[in-house]
Amino acid sequence: MDFILTEIAFDRDNIPWNGNRFLIGNGYFGIRGTLEEYTKENMCAVNMAGIYDRAGDAWRETVNAPNPLYTYVKVNGKKYALPENEPVSHEQTLDFEKGLHSRKTVWQTEDGRITVKCERFASMSRRHLISMRYTFAADFECDAEIITGIDGDVWDINGPHFVKFNSGSEDGVNYVEGITGEKHISVTARDSVKLDFDAECSGDVCEKAVYRRIVFKAEPHKEYCIEKIAEITTSEDDFEPIGDIRDITYQELKAEHTAAWEKIWDISKITIDGDDDAMYALNYSIYHLNCIAPREMKGKSIAARGLSGQVYKGAVFWDTEMFMIDYYIYTEPQIAKTLLQYRIDTLDGARQKAKEYGLKGAYYAWESQDGGYEGCSDYNVTDVFTKRPMRTYFRDKQYHVSAAIVYGLMKYIKGTGDYDILNEGAMEMVIECAEFYRSLLIKKADERYYEIHDVVGPDEYHERVNNNSYTNRMAKFVFDTALELMEKYTSDEYNSLKPMLQDSAENIFIRQPNDSGIIEQFDGYFRLEDVSVDEVRSRLIDPKEYWGGAYGVAADTQVIKQADVVAMLSMFKDDYASEIMEKNLEYYEPRTEHGSSLSACMYSLLSCYTNNPKTAYPMFMKSARADLTKGGKEWAGLVYIGGTHPASAGGAWIAAVKGFAGITEEDGKLICKPNLPEKWNGMRFKLIYKNKLYLIEVQNNSGAVMII
Amino acid sequence: MDFILTEIAFDRDNIPWNGNRFLIGNGYFGIRGTLEEYTKENMCAVNMAGIYDRAGDAWRETVNAPNPLYTYVKVNGKKYALPENEPVSHEQTLDFEKGLHSRKTVWQTEDGRITVKCERFASMSRRHLISMRYTFAADFECDAEIITGIDGDVWDINGPHFVKFNSGSEDGVNYVEGITGEKHISVTARDSVKLDFDAECSGDVCEKAVYRRIVFKAEPHKEYCIEKIAEITTSEDDFEPIGDIRDITYQELKAEHTAAWEKIWDISKITIDGDDDAMYALNYSIYHLNCIAPREMKGKSIAARGLSGQVYKGAVFWDTEMFMIDYYIYTEPQIAKTLLQYRIDTLDGARQKAKEYGLKGAYYAWESQDGGYEGCSDYNVTDVFTKRPMRTYFRDKQYHVSAAIVYGLMKYIKGTGDYDILNEGAMEMVIECAEFYRSLLIKKADERYYEIHDVVGPDEYHERVNNNSYTNRMAKFVFDTALELMEKYTSDEYNSLKPMLQDSAENIFIRQPNDSGIIEQFDGYFRLEDVSVDEVRSRLIDPKEYWGGAYGVAADTQVIKQADVVAMLSMFKDDYASEIMEKNLEYYEPRTEHGSSLSACMYSLLSCYTNNPKTAYPMFMKSARADLTKGGKEWAGLVYIGGTHPASAGGAWIAAVKGFAGITEEDGKLICKPNLPEKWNGMRFKLIYKNKLYLIEVQNNSGAVMII
Repeated sequence: MDFILTEIAFDRDNIPWNGNRFLIGNGYFGIRGTLEEYTKENMCAVNMAGIYDRAGDAWRETVNAPNPLYTYVKVNGKKYALPENEPVSHEQTLDFEKGLHSRKTVWQTEDGRITVKCERFASMSRRHLISMRYTFAADFECDAEIITGIDGDVWDINGPHFVKFNSGSEDGVNYVEGITGEKHISVTARDSVKLDFDAECSGDVCEKAVYRRIVFKAEPHKEYCIEKIAEITTSEDDFEPIGDIRDITYQELKAEHTAAWEKIWDISKITIDGDDDAMYALNYSIYHLNCIAPREMKGKSIAARGLSGQVYKGAVFWDTEMFMIDYYIYTEPQIAKTLLQYRIDTLDGARQKAKEYGLKGAYYAWESQDGGYEGCSDYNVTDVFTKRPMRTYFRDKQYHVSAAIVYGLMKYIKGTGDYDILNEGAMEMVIECAEFYRSLLIKKADERYYEIHDVVGPDEYHERVNNNSYTNRMAKFVFDTALELMEKYTSDEYNSLKPMLQDSAENIFIRQPNDSGIIEQFDGYFRLEDVSVDEVRSRLIDPKEYWGGAYGVAADTQVIKQADVVAMLSMFKDDYASEIMEKNLEYYEPRTEHGSSLSACMYSLLSCYTNNPKTAYPMFMKSARADLTKGGKEWAGLVYIGGTHPASAGGAWIAAVKGFAGITEEDGKLICKPNLPEKWNGMRFKLIYKNKLYLIEVQNNSGAVMII
Repeated sequence: MDFILTEIAFDRDNIPWNGNRFLIGNGYFGIRGTLEEYTKENMCAVNMAGIYDRAGDAWRETVNAPNPLYTYVKVNGKKYALPENEPVSHEQTLDFEKGLHSRKTVWQTEDGRITVKCERFASMSRRHLISMRYTFAADFECDAEIITGIDGDVWDINGPHFVKFNSGSEDGVNYVEGITGEKHISVTARDSVKLDFDAECSGDVCEKAVYRRIVFKAEPHKEYCIEKIAEITTSEDDFEPIGDIRDITYQELKAEHTAAWEKIWDISKITIDGDDDAMYALNYSIYHLNCIAPREMKGKSIAARGLSGQVYKGAVFWDTEMFMIDYYIYTEPQIAKTLLQYRIDTLDGARQKAKEYGLKGAYYAWESQDGGYEGCSDYNVTDVFTKRPMRTYFRDKQYHVSAAIVYGLMKYIKGTGDYDILNEGAMEMVIECAEFYRSLLIKKADERYYEIHDVVGPDEYHERVNNNSYTNRMAKFVFDTALELMEKYTSDEYNSLKPMLQDSAENIFIRQPNDSGIIEQFDGYFRLEDVSVDEVRSRLIDPKEYWGGAYGVAADTQVIKQADVVAMLSMFKDDYASEIMEKNLEYYEPRTEHGSSLSACMYSLLSCYTNNPKTAYPMFMKSARADLTKGGKEWAGLVYIGGTHPASAGGAWIAAVKGFAGITEEDGKLICKPNLPEKWNGMRFKLIYKNKLYLIEVQNNSGAVMII
């Protein structure tokens, strides 16, 4: 089947959404699926991985590079561009097998029709490069002009980030360099253009932009093509661009690029027999995971919205270790290690955050930026009624983040057998996380168990609760893991901590299922109003208002944002009887708004674990199609939260591979216990497990795992 | 000097306020200072002490009796009444030495002027009775009619409370009985009327009201007077009315009544030489304390708004034991004992509340009603922007209430020497309160001290804080008190609790002053925005919006509602150096909004303790004049909170007697260490201390304490 995403006809309402779903990227940057003639008003972005800036008192966020794709046409002196000029026809395409974005637009002019086509890609072989092939044709003779340049007046959510620009032209290479205000980081875009026709070429150098004007007499029905090789560099790069952009041709770069994608797909692709929709959506999700992976990079992780913009401050969330890392562990373990290395490298930031709250050890950021800097402010939502910032507790009280990182590490170690990582900082990280959870433990006078009070669990709609079942269980996991890894660790430097770890692991309060088999999400959850998600939704006065917080519509009800107890059960499935998992699924699912892209895949996975692929399937599809479906949550209060959903993409992969295919580890071996949806006749995919490549073939409900 | 409060001229905007400041009462009920022709629209109330009802899902509150004062006139067929008919002149008077309310109103009619006068009182000698003398005169001959009756269609905030009425007339006595919905309590008003002139009398009996029509030909310049004796009874009464209202004359009842007040004033009055304003305001405060005292009653306490209406649900707050009880201890100790007996009697309600929150012992209600029932809901404020109820934590987390009751008990025992009360339930109460605080203690793993987390202190603008200095200190006080009283207690039944009490008292975290001498109000208070009260006020979008809650304008600042650390210091003055008290006063005063009537008196008292009568004086006057000053806080969110302020009145008394006169106890003796404001030449008042009557005479800065 073809892995092609197409939109035919032009709908201006889709501009923000298309920016996300037509995204291309190579881990170093992401290029939103906007059109070449667009400017910041239409949310163009060449979003740089891990380059941050803070403008004034606004939120710190990633930086968008000057945009070297900026191009439009004039015919007989008149500009034709979307969205201003309604087209006769328009088509936008993403070939996500090859990582190629293209568009074709036809406009009616006074004298006849003109056609603009463009193909572009973010080079997967040379990470600094972007290339495009832009073609103009008219069905009548005309004076044509192609204006192409580098636009430094970029879209920013909390900008502007460039406080100084250097623009110019040298030996056929134009450039715009922006310098950020906070750390004086230089972000430069350069371009070089080749024509296959005669034209009069000139240029303009402005403060924030450079332009080339290519003026020519166009003959009817003849295609005029320009090819641009552009390069992005920053002063933070730890690798050099390969080659001189003036020497590189579009065709050769494209050949390299598609070859690189082919290599990725060879291990990544998942074939599903009998369900093209599912196969399409799942591989589309895998495409996104590949676009944003910090492949061959150092000290970088993946932001919650990938490289689709500055949403969520371009920050790294627990999403990475919870939902994305699995895919990389089993397809390109080096990328998984890079993600973990980011956490090891930023341990100091986590230590500092713990100290700030009078806690010990490492408290990882909810919104982690460079150096582990906590990007989250105390006011992360704006009240729609008063327009005031609302005091939120994502930053202070989502204690589960540190545990998620340890959980991600353990998944990596189990999947790769790479215990060496412990000596590369990971053991210290685990110990610091354990010390952190120790410092959260409190004991009531005259009671036996340690409790953790005043937390926000994964379900953010209920703030400041006590003994969130998920958080307590994760804290125990960290204590257990520290003890387990100590046995594998080559030094005995942490051995004196064993009594503390044992005491913590044994005496932390782990909530058991009640008489109905349900695990209460936190102290007092069952006493909250038990009411449907629809009823809660109907109480909204403003559709953009925040459901959580102290007074949100969900706050005093049992309606939750996302999997919480269900997430916990899916992560510790071996601790619970299938019947308990089923009962909790049944209880919590109708009470879950799925207001987070992290939710549906957890429900899907747990449904697979309880042999309910039928229930799992729609949740899986919701995750896999998160970026293909319009109408996702775009606002929290007055804050824009749109963008791609790599955690959903990763969650879809987990649901497919661990859920439906039933890939699991038993006694150090990979085995396959499939639970395919009814219409799936089979699945076929490759996995890397402990340095060996496996081919998995599932036929109906039996699976074969073969080393290849 | 005369103790007379007068308003000359009529201002309809003052109707609610006058209802409070012209209040009369006798502890059994309070009668708002509204005019005789007023109905529920103008907030008339005969507010019954301790009779509660809940209508539907609305807040439970006290009941207003059918109003037997309802009276108006008609002249030549036309009704004359305020506020509808603008008067020529109008005067409203409260003689608060005699407990007499009167009014005189002149209207211009088409034919001439008419004058209505009325004097009334709530009998201090026979607690069921109300009496009034209503006089009509015209300066022209006319057909006059006085309509007087019992109006059962009463003002309610969360009503209606009467679900059934019985109205009628029998042997010259009219009556309206209302039956409440929740507990079927009967509340009946009866009246009997005498005339001193010839008239044609008839009557109407309606569902909720009875009326007498007194029709007569009025000669010019002649006064026509009717006298009414009315009686209120309820099915909850534990004492009988004295006498038949038909046999009682106005003059004889008035003579009894003023004699009773005279007896009260003989011990209550405080003379201040050189400051008539202060003397007037202080004795006006004392008047209110006497109007609402449950004198010769059982099982009743005093509501936060006295008997001025249903505001704050007619509920008993910690105000009583903190700010009011002192006055009674030293003037009529039997009343103080009645107040404490109410708490002893409602211990079961407090036990039940503790259990509801998974706590032990006795957790007294924030808004205590009959049986200790917690009148406070989880939603005690309405959001002005969304009109939604806001989740508040007054009910759940103001843990300091139980301690205030123990503190009140100890003041009583120290002031009276009455240790017998321990055998009458008080010891059990103290022990249960100690068990309650024990169950709040938590200890962090690896730390030494017990902490108390997630509380609301006296400063309600900061919710859910940890280690509120006031609350922790009060908890320690309860442990210490339980240990101290155990030595005086005749039984050893609680001796096994000693180790627990000692451990708690020794190891609870008591915050010490920081390097600047300031005691931080709670964990992290100093990290909040340090900004002026005016700046915070300027951030209000709506003047009625609540300053506290999760997102109120004060919540994330250091601006506090009321004395918190300062209250603690004034209560435990012997534990702190004068310099520390001064520094904390200096620090906290400019950060205090004084949004509670409990605030100013604490600042005044502590200023006296640090020998700053000049600073203390305006705060004292603010307290003493709380009900004399227009513009008090009347709204919290969309909830009306107007009414009288007996805690301010009590606080003014404390500031005057314990502060300025410097009355204190040393080695079991009453001594006087005065700190008079500059213009006060002297003070003279009586006190009862340990069953002996004392006369205190202060001249400049020396004081004499004489047993009389």
